Amino acid sequence: MRAVYPGSFDPITLGHIDIIKRISNIFDEVVVLISHSAEKQSLFTVEERMKLIHEALKDIKNVKVDHHQGLTVDYVRQAKAKVIVRGLRAVVDFEYELAMGNVNRKMAPDIETLLVNASPEYYFISSRMVKDIAKNKGDLNGFVPKHVIKPLQSKFAKSMNKGGKK
Amino acid sequence: MRAVYPGSFDPITLGHIDIIKRISNIFDEVVVLISHSAEKQSLFTVEERMKLIHEALKDIKNVKVDHHQGLTVDYVRQAKAKVIVRGLRAVVDFEYELAMGNVNRKMAPDIETLLVNASPEYYFISSRMVKDIAKNKGDLNGFVPKHVIKPLQSKFAKSMNKGGKK
Amino acid sequence: MRAVYPGSFDPITLGHIDIIKRISNIFDEVVVLISHSAEKQSLFTVEERMKLIHEALKDIKNVKVDHHQGLTVDYVRQAKAKVIVRGLRAVVDFEYELAMGNVNRKMAPDIETLLVNASPEYYFISSRMVKDIAKNKGDLNGFVPKHVIKPLQSKFAKSMNKGGKK
Amino acid sequence: MRAVYPGSFDPITLGHIDIIKRISNIFDEVVVLISHSAEKQSLFTVEERMKLIHEALKDIKNVKVDHHQGLTVDYVRQAKAKVIVRGLRAVVDFEYELAMGNVNRKMAPDIETLLVNASPEYYFISSRMVKDIAKNKGDLNGFVPKHVIKPLQSKFAKSMNKGGKK
Amino acid sequence: MRAVYPGSFDPITLGHIDIIKRISNIFDEVVVLISHSAEKQSLFTVEERMKLIHEALKDIKNVKVDHHQGLTVDYVRQAKAKVIVRGLRAVVDFEYELAMGNVNRKMAPDIETLLVNASPEYYFISSRMVKDIAKNKGDLNGFVPKHVIKPLQSKFAKSMNKGGKK
Amino acid sequence: MRAVYPGSFDPITLGHIDIIKRISNIFDEVVVLISHSAEKQSLFTVEERMKLIHEALKDIKNVKVDHHQGLTVDYVRQAKAKVIVRGLRAVVDFEYELAMGNVNRKMAPDIETLLVNASPEYYFISSRMVKDIAKNKGDLNGFVPKHVIKPLQSKFAKSMNKGGKK
Repeated sequence: MRAVYPGSFDPITLGHIDIIKRISNIFDEVVVLISHSAEKQSLFTVEERMKLIHEALKDIKNVKVDHHQGLTVDYVRQAKAKVIVRGLRAVVDFEYELAMGNVNRKMAPDIETLLVNASPEYYFISSRMVKDIAKNKGDLNGFVPKHVIKPLQSKFAKSMNKGGKK
Repeated sequence: MRAVYPGSFDPITLGHIDIIKRISNIFDEVVVLISHSAEKQSLFTVEERMKLIHEALKDIKNVKVDHHQGLTVDYVRQAKAKVIVRGLRAVVDFEYELAMGNVNRKMAPDIETLLVNASPEYYFISSRMVKDIAKNKGDLNGFVPKHVIKPLQSKFAKSMNKGGKK
Repeated sequence: MRAVYPGSFDPITLGHIDIIKRISNIFDEVVVLISHSAEKQSLFTVEERMKLIHEALKDIKNVKVDHHQGLTVDYVRQAKAKVIVRGLRAVVDFEYELAMGNVNRKMAPDIETLLVNASPEYYFISSRMVKDIAKNKGDLNGFVPKHVIKPLQSKFAKSMNKGGKK
Repeated sequence: MRAVYPGSFDPITLGHIDIIKRISNIFDEVVVLISHSAEKQSLFTVEERMKLIHEALKDIKNVKVDHHQGLTVDYVRQAKAKVIVRGLRAVVDFEYELAMGNVNRKMAPDIETLLVNASPEYYFISSRMVKDIAKNKGDLNGFVPKHVIKPLQSKFAKSMNKGGKK
Repeated sequence: MRAVYPGSFDPITLGHIDIIKRISNIFDEVVVLISHSAEKQSLFTVEERMKLIHEALKDIKNVKVDHHQGLTVDYVRQAKAKVIVRGLRAVVDFEYELAMGNVNRKMAPDIETLLVNASPEYYFISSRMVKDIAKNKGDLNGFVPKHVIKPLQSKFAKSMNKGGKK
Repeated sequence: MRAVYPGSFDPITLGHIDIIKRISNIFDEVVVLISHSAEKQSLFTVEERMKLIHEALKDIKNVKVDHHQGLTVDYVRQAKAKVIVRGLRAVVDFEYELAMGNVNRKMAPDIETLLVNASPEYYFISSRMVKDIAKNKGDLNGFVPKHVIKPLQSKFAKSMNKGGKK
């Protein structure tokens, strides 16, 4: 059974890695899928994100990294997978995932969305908070893997000169 | 008793139509009110939205469509209505509606807000999700009425050339 | 239009009265319906509850008080009403009402449930909290109408001797 | 991959069946596990519940029904499964499942809990609501499978004579 | 400044201890207050609970343990404290604490309730879950302090013979 | 004990003032901290916000107003405070504060975040809603202090000419 774990991973956090490790024990293959779109601004390019994810997951054998522009269900179907996995941290996540899962089931009744609780120690980590901490020169240890810290700091060192990034 | 059902209806979805049909059985007249403002970007113009709503509701006799820029309570008072109706889908909606309802009651203690549960089958539909699906060329059946599909698709066909729409 | 406002009203609180007053401005007639069942223990008998409600609402002309054992939709249908009104205080209420409303619509598609926000100043009042305060000899002013205070205190004066009431 | 779907199933509803069908498409085997305990009162005996579940699932090949008294993780481990599946309907469910999932992971780090959204049309159905409807002689179609209706009605016909069931 | 931390502590968990330690750094004195009532059944007696709490907190100097039957605000006032501290784990907690805090402020406007987030690693622990685990002979390490494990196990060893405890 | 109450205060509302008054009774000193950043657009400048806050709090002796760009924990540490106070209105607030509090504790384990319930009558007021009302020429009494009304109205009088403010 192949499962797809979609997200923006801008950048990958310790919370993402925890979920990927856990689901890689359950499914034969896990595809970490970077969902992107022309309109949505990101801090890292798709290529940078792929590289950071690959480095973070190099010890897990049954994981593949890919990227996709468009509906997740279209990717899942074409990848011949039947399962989308999403992490849950809070009620706001839960309601969004509930709606998204139902939309996906309406468009692709053969594809199921399974939700996985974030581990308590990573419950409060999001890519957005991580970017806020980096922007404010806070300590990133415990939020992202070691190899992500420097690239993340550089982004905001650069952005200082060109006016910030939201 | 006249009730006002305000929203941005950008565009009208099957979820909106379900609520309008249900409340048109309770109140003497239902005014579907397009709330708009100069600053808030929309996909469809007010005129386009009115036309799509009219077409969707042509079989319901006691429904009127109107538009308004400014506070909903100002419209309701001038329309000599006493009731605002709002649909609820999720906790996030609920809390927003709670706050909005209280703000409105503070400004206009004579006007009541009544909340109506979305029907389960439409629970997960929002104008925003519908636009996302359209942007990604997904199947819009089951989300919006038939006559809305084509105009919605055209918007994103056009926007392809000029850089997307959020 | 006739609306039914069901509840256990064990006893009626200032929160209930606020909602009844507000909806009596909207509907032609409001039926305050005491829902009871043989198995569910209550502090006040149905007769006592009816008396306390009548006293509380004596100034509102278009209100009727009644009681019913069984499904609310059965009462509503037989009363030739089309609307059930329920008050909302919190997310927990909201989710319960959402489920109840859907169950009722499945059993009686012609009956609608409308939800009304509790006013902020009564947001935190429930019959259950009121009973807890009374049991612990707390000050009941601001929670229940004046004429309910004494009967409520007497219940717990009595219950002291026979071992408490949950 | 074997998954365990635990619950009290007192009785099985259309909501349970929907989730079982959906997860039986993903996992090699699904064990529907009746969790019971000496202290927790139930309407149906374990034997009755097993029979009603078997009948409901007779067309799904990779489903097994079992029962267990004690911690679910103990059963899962002994059954050599690695996955617990739970359905989600509301925020209250979500928070309970979050806590339960974390407790289980603390006791058995090798076992994962996956959460599945109830389908919108079954979102509002619970065994508890179904029992309430049966007790009040309401229409059970659309809530439980056909073969559950009669046994459920009989329980409350009987309980009439011996004083109700909570 | 003296703060009161009320609860049933039946029994004290690692989650309680974490909150007590954290608030003992902020306030001059923290009173851990066992709230009990004649009607509410508990697993441990008040005396047993006090002893377990004392043992758990013996290294914190500015903590006092006490017990009280009745309204918490009555105790707080008589103890010349101005602050009630409560822990938060979930939305359900939050809404209950919101209502309780408002009830308390209505009865005692001079007393404030401050809420403290449970630490992520204790987020999912409650006295209730701990009792469930003990009842089912699960591993209690990581949920309660070492010295609580044996007394907790004994309670359920005993209760086996007399029919269980809820 | 010194406590820091951070926010954008764009502008200060009656809800903020209520919380500041209440916590100034508990802590020796309360620092009202305007958190700002170069990227985040605001309606009022930091200087204007400070002036409006000073005027609003002139009768409270133990309150100081300050502003800071960067992580709140950095300010708190440098101000030799140990407590951050945040107000809570809704579940959405609660979850955000939960995450923020945990991020702050990870970066600064010696600093605690205490949460205070908004009073029911101010529960629904936010700077954002206040700006919406001002933009739409609604009545601002009961939302912001008297001296804030005029400056707020002027902002939107001006913005009319230059194209609005979100």
